Amino acid sequence: MRAIITGAGGFVGQELVRQLRAQGRFDRLVLLDARLPPGLAGPDAELVEGDLADPSIRARATGQGADVLFHLAGVMGGTAEQDPALSRRINLDATLDLIDAVAAYGNVPRVVFTSTIAVFGAPLPDHVDDDTPLSPAMTYGAHKLMVEIALADLTRRGALDAVSVRLPGILARPLGPSGMKSAFMSEVFHALAAGKPFTVPVSREATIWAMSVERCAANLVHAAGLDGAVMPTTRAVTLPALRLVFGEMVDAIVARTGADPALVTYVPDAPLEAQFGRLPPLTAAAAQAAGFAHDGSTEAFVAAALRGIGAP
Amino acid sequence: MRAIITGAGGFVGQELVRQLRAQGRFDRLVLLDARLPPGLAGPDAELVEGDLADPSIRARATGQGADVLFHLAGVMGGTAEQDPALSRRINLDATLDLIDAVAAYGNVPRVVFTSTIAVFGAPLPDHVDDDTPLSPAMTYGAHKLMVEIALADLTRRGALDAVSVRLPGILARPLGPSGMKSAFMSEVFHALAAGKPFTVPVSREATIWAMSVERCAANLVHAAGLDGAVMPTTRAVTLPALRLVFGEMVDAIVARTGADPALVTYVPDAPLEAQFGRLPPLTAAAAQAAGFAHDGSTEAFVAAALRGIGAP
Repeated sequence: MRAIITGAGGFVGQELVRQLRAQGRFDRLVLLDARLPPGLAGPDAELVEGDLADPSIRARATGQGADVLFHLAGVMGGTAEQDPALSRRINLDATLDLIDAVAAYGNVPRVVFTSTIAVFGAPLPDHVDDDTPLSPAMTYGAHKLMVEIALADLTRRGALDAVSVRLPGILARPLGPSGMKSAFMSEVFHALAAGKPFTVPVSREATIWAMSVERCAANLVHAAGLDGAVMPTTRAVTLPALRLVFGEMVDAIVARTGADPALVTYVPDAPLEAQFGRLPPLTAAAAQAAGFAHDGSTEAFVAAALRGIGAP
Repeated sequence: MRAIITGAGGFVGQELVRQLRAQGRFDRLVLLDARLPPGLAGPDAELVEGDLADPSIRARATGQGADVLFHLAGVMGGTAEQDPALSRRINLDATLDLIDAVAAYGNVPRVVFTSTIAVFGAPLPDHVDDDTPLSPAMTYGAHKLMVEIALADLTRRGALDAVSVRLPGILARPLGPSGMKSAFMSEVFHALAAGKPFTVPVSREATIWAMSVERCAANLVHAAGLDGAVMPTTRAVTLPALRLVFGEMVDAIVARTGADPALVTYVPDAPLEAQFGRLPPLTAAAAQAAGFAHDGSTEAFVAAALRGIGAP
C-alpha cells in the first residue's frame, strides 16, 4: 500500500507520518514538501522536496499513483489573505492538478483533504452544525471550499474517493514566525512549560475550538480507512473540535506543568477576542457518526498538546 | 460606459446584446465568442472571435477593462459531464483568469455571471428556496458553484462587484444539435408554431422551471445595474423561474399559435420525467426582493418564448 503525503514536513504532516508508520498499513510513503526535515527519511519513504505548483515536482510525487493521497500542503490563512494570487496558484490550481494526477492513475484512490472551519465564514451563527451554510469570509476558506466541491464531484464521477476534513485550530504549534494572529494559543503552552510569564490577549472567558496535533493526525488516519457505510454523503466533515474556555485550558496547563499560576495575565484585545475568542457551540454529528473524535476533555487535550511540544 | 459580453453569439448572449443596445447605457460593447453572427456588428462593438481558454483572446477582450463584465460563455451541462477536463479548462480556469483580468484593471467592475440551478443538485428537495443546501450533482453545476464562491470572495476583497445569477431552463432555444436532453422543451414550441406533430416525452402533469430568453436577458441587464441596497449578501441569486405544468404550457402554445391540439401526444419517458419533469415549488425571495422577475404567467411566458423564435 502506497500513500502520498503533501505537507509532510509541516506541523500536522510530521505527526501524520509518525502515526502512519506506527500503524503499518502503508509500506511506501511518498513525502512531499517545500522542505523535509531529515528525521522523516526511512527505508519506506520517497522524499520529494519542491514547490507543489511545479508540474515536475507533482509528477515525481504522483508518477506511480497511490492508494491514498493525504493532501495537507497549502498556503496558510494569513498568507492567502495577503496574496490571493498565490493562494489561487497553490490552494486551488496546483491542488486540483495534483488531485487530477492521482485520479488519472485509475485506481479510484482515497483522497484525504485538510479543509478548514473557515468555510463557515464570520461571524459564526450562535450554533454551528452540519446544516450551517458555507459562506467563507477569507480567501483561504473560499479556496478550500472550492476544492471540497471539486472533490465531491470527482467522487460522484468515480474518479476518486474523497473525504474533506475541516480542521479547527490545531495546538500547540511549534514556536516561530507562523504569521498567524492566533499564535498566542500555542505560545501559552510553550511559555508555561518553560516557566515563563505570558500575557493572554483574550479574556479568561474566551471560547475556542481546539484539537491536539496527535488527535488531528489520528482523525486523518481514520479518514484514510473510512468505510463507505458511514461515509457522509457530502464527502466533507467538520471535525468534532473541543470547545474550550480559555481560562480553563490555562488552568489545566498550570496543573499539568506545575507552573506558577501568577505567570499568566489576561489583557484582552477586542479584535482578537472577537475573531478568536467567541467560538459558539459546535455539533459535528456527521463526523462523530463516522467515527471522528475530539480529544475527550480539556485535561486530555492539554496533556496531548504538551506531549506534542515535548513538554513533560 | 463599456461592457464585455462573453458568449455574445449564443442564444442568451444575442438577446442580451439586443437589450443592452435598446437600453443605451453602454457606448462600447466588447463581444467575445467562439463564433459571432454577423448581425452583432455595429459602430459600438468590438468583436473578439476565439477560444476563451486562449490568453491572447482574453487579453484582447479585457485589455481596456470594463464597467461591466457579463460572463455567459461556457461549456454546457451535457458536454461538461462528458468532458470534465474541458469543463475545468473553460468553466473554471479560463473563467477565473478572465475575472482576474477584468479585476486587475482596478475599477471594481460589476461582474454578472450566469450560474445555474444545477448548483442545487439532484434529487431536489420538496421545496427550493434561498436556504436550500448547495450540492451539485453534475460537473457543470460544481464548476459554476466554485466560480460563485470565487466571485463572492473577490467581491469581499473589493476587487470587483459580482452578482451570480442562477438560470433555470431558458426557452425556446433555436432548433439544432444542442446535445441537451431537455431539448424537447424547446422543440414543442417550434413544432406547434410550424403546425407539425410533436410527441412530448414527459407527462401532461410534468412540472418544469422556465423563463423566456427575453426575460432572462432582462434579468441580466437588471443585475448589471443592481443597487447595493438590495444586493443579496451572498452575491448569488436564484432567478424566480415560473414553475409550469407542461400540459398547461402546451395548451397555451396551442391557443396562441392556433395549432391543432391533436398534433400533441404525450409518451412519458420515465428517466426524462424524473430528471426534467418533477421540479418542486421554488421560492426565490432574495432575487424577488432585489427586483429580479419571472415571466408573470404561463400565457405571458409562452408569448415571449414564441416571440423569441420569431413565431407570430
